[in-house]
Amino acid sequence: MDSFFYKVVFYKKNKEMEPVVVDVKHRVQYYETDKMGYVHNSNYFRFFEIGRTEFMRTYGVEYSAMEKEGVMMPLIEQHARYHTPALYDELITIRTIVEKMPMSRIHFEYRILKTDDNGKEILVCEGWNELCFIDEKTRKPLRCPLWVQEKLEKVLPVK
Amino acid sequence: MDSFFYKVVFYKKNKEMEPVVVDVKHRVQYYETDKMGYVHNSNYFRFFEIGRTEFMRTYGVEYSAMEKEGVMMPLIEQHARYHTPALYDELITIRTIVEKMPMSRIHFEYRILKTDDNGKEILVCEGWNELCFIDEKTRKPLRCPLWVQEKLEKVLPVK
Amino acid sequence: MDSFFYKVVFYKKNKEMEPVVVDVKHRVQYYETDKMGYVHNSNYFRFFEIGRTEFMRTYGVEYSAMEKEGVMMPLIEQHARYHTPALYDELITIRTIVEKMPMSRIHFEYRILKTDDNGKEILVCEGWNELCFIDEKTRKPLRCPLWVQEKLEKVLPVK
Amino acid sequence: MDSFFYKVVFYKKNKEMEPVVVDVKHRVQYYETDKMGYVHNSNYFRFFEIGRTEFMRTYGVEYSAMEKEGVMMPLIEQHARYHTPALYDELITIRTIVEKMPMSRIHFEYRILKTDDNGKEILVCEGWNELCFIDEKTRKPLRCPLWVQEKLEKVLPVK
Repeated sequence: MDSFFYKVVFYKKNKEMEPVVVDVKHRVQYYETDKMGYVHNSNYFRFFEIGRTEFMRTYGVEYSAMEKEGVMMPLIEQHARYHTPALYDELITIRTIVEKMPMSRIHFEYRILKTDDNGKEILVCEGWNELCFIDEKTRKPLRCPLWVQEKLEKVLPVK
Repeated sequence: MDSFFYKVVFYKKNKEMEPVVVDVKHRVQYYETDKMGYVHNSNYFRFFEIGRTEFMRTYGVEYSAMEKEGVMMPLIEQHARYHTPALYDELITIRTIVEKMPMSRIHFEYRILKTDDNGKEILVCEGWNELCFIDEKTRKPLRCPLWVQEKLEKVLPVK
Repeated sequence: MDSFFYKVVFYKKNKEMEPVVVDVKHRVQYYETDKMGYVHNSNYFRFFEIGRTEFMRTYGVEYSAMEKEGVMMPLIEQHARYHTPALYDELITIRTIVEKMPMSRIHFEYRILKTDDNGKEILVCEGWNELCFIDEKTRKPLRCPLWVQEKLEKVLPVK
Repeated sequence: MDSFFYKVVFYKKNKEMEPVVVDVKHRVQYYETDKMGYVHNSNYFRFFEIGRTEFMRTYGVEYSAMEKEGVMMPLIEQHARYHTPALYDELITIRTIVEKMPMSRIHFEYRILKTDDNGKEILVCEGWNELCFIDEKTRKPLRCPLWVQEKLEKVLPVK
């Protein structure tokens, strides 16, 4: 029996300008469904949040540590395109992709995937969003903190 | 056509030790349902929150004003008993009842109601919860702020 | 004292190709905020849902009635751009705009607005989404039901 | 680096009338917090749902399989008592405890726990709830399905 409820599968570390990808498994909960029997459309944006948090943790950046330093990351814009509904209790993959180093903004791409009975990957939803950095006190824009840049530089292609 | 989406119906002002009651109408949203087609059980606690906020506003106490003064009201305990499911798009009543003046804690009772085709009231869910007052900075317990007591004293039976 | 918690303000009925607009007032709830003190980004998509439901109800189309006939409206795509955060207890306006008659899809535009201390409108968030019509049983695409078309034709510009 | 985001730790199998316990780890998400910086009170009931689903899966009962057979499990009653707030990004344990075989109802107990800097367990929240079994079509009460009883009998004390 598989004793791991959720796990992070680590993808290729970046070499030669390839985007960096992190996968997180998530089990669809009953409270995430709606009366259509599908995951409610708003919840995919919550899955994106799980994805980017684990992406950053994977490369040594805990968002909670950033907030303790007084840096917050509000959302500027986001988008989702729905392909196939995810259903209750399905084990989905939240795939987060970053293509370049953040400066004053960071851009994440997402793919929500599930597998059919033959183990073939099915695209559930794709999306992206863009976040900025702000000072917790003044709520004014900031550049990406240096220590975060240093952590991400090791893996992200500097374009 | 009824142009009012939601409204507060004011119940009897307190006279001679009667509990004080405030009703709020709420339209059940799609995102509040689950795949059973019912309002998800956790959302009733959110309805309770709508109810107590409007209860307090009705008697001159804005929770947001209290927070601006550095007083927060975390939950200590809560309970719900489910009778009949509320369904998508139904117009429910969130009834909030307070029986006595808060000192270091405040106790709210709730009834979630809907009406059948003949206009008869049906009990959907009943519950209660208890909140305390804490200092935003120290996160230590406080007594109910004086100005809040003064507002509520005018309507609540002092037992 | 204003006894109306939420209300729908009816905008201009359609004349000569103008888009049709419906406003709904919504009070930001505590459970809609996150630790940044802002409405969580995912909740704006729930506000969009409140908006389009009331838009359709305003013109005689209850989404719940459509579902009872076996027609469901899943989301295909959606987008949000965040301008200014909405905060706890603020009274926001959910403005829903439709520009043309739905055939196999329906496209909604949204503006989330609040007012500053001088009563001037502030743009909180703007977005759009597109929904299709499917058969509840087969889950296959359908055209917009005739009775819905007839209701909307009376107000929407037929381009 | 710990590559496991979430995992289920299996507790003692039942011997001599002891209650059966299953633990699930859950990382507190940003969208689960409110402006107080705490996990919103309503979300604990969602954690309870994660807990009981994994409890049942651990002993061979997938709730989704039960639903496919036309048996649903709505909530009858629930309770939570809050001790210490869980904060953003904390790794909490959702402990689910069942003391006896379900017949027409099933009673779950929960403890939400976190650990302090010395690894000592802290009680965040404790609660319980009771669910019944209903027929999906008629929505009438049922007894616990036989195959579910057989699975649970192997581990649960038959009192």
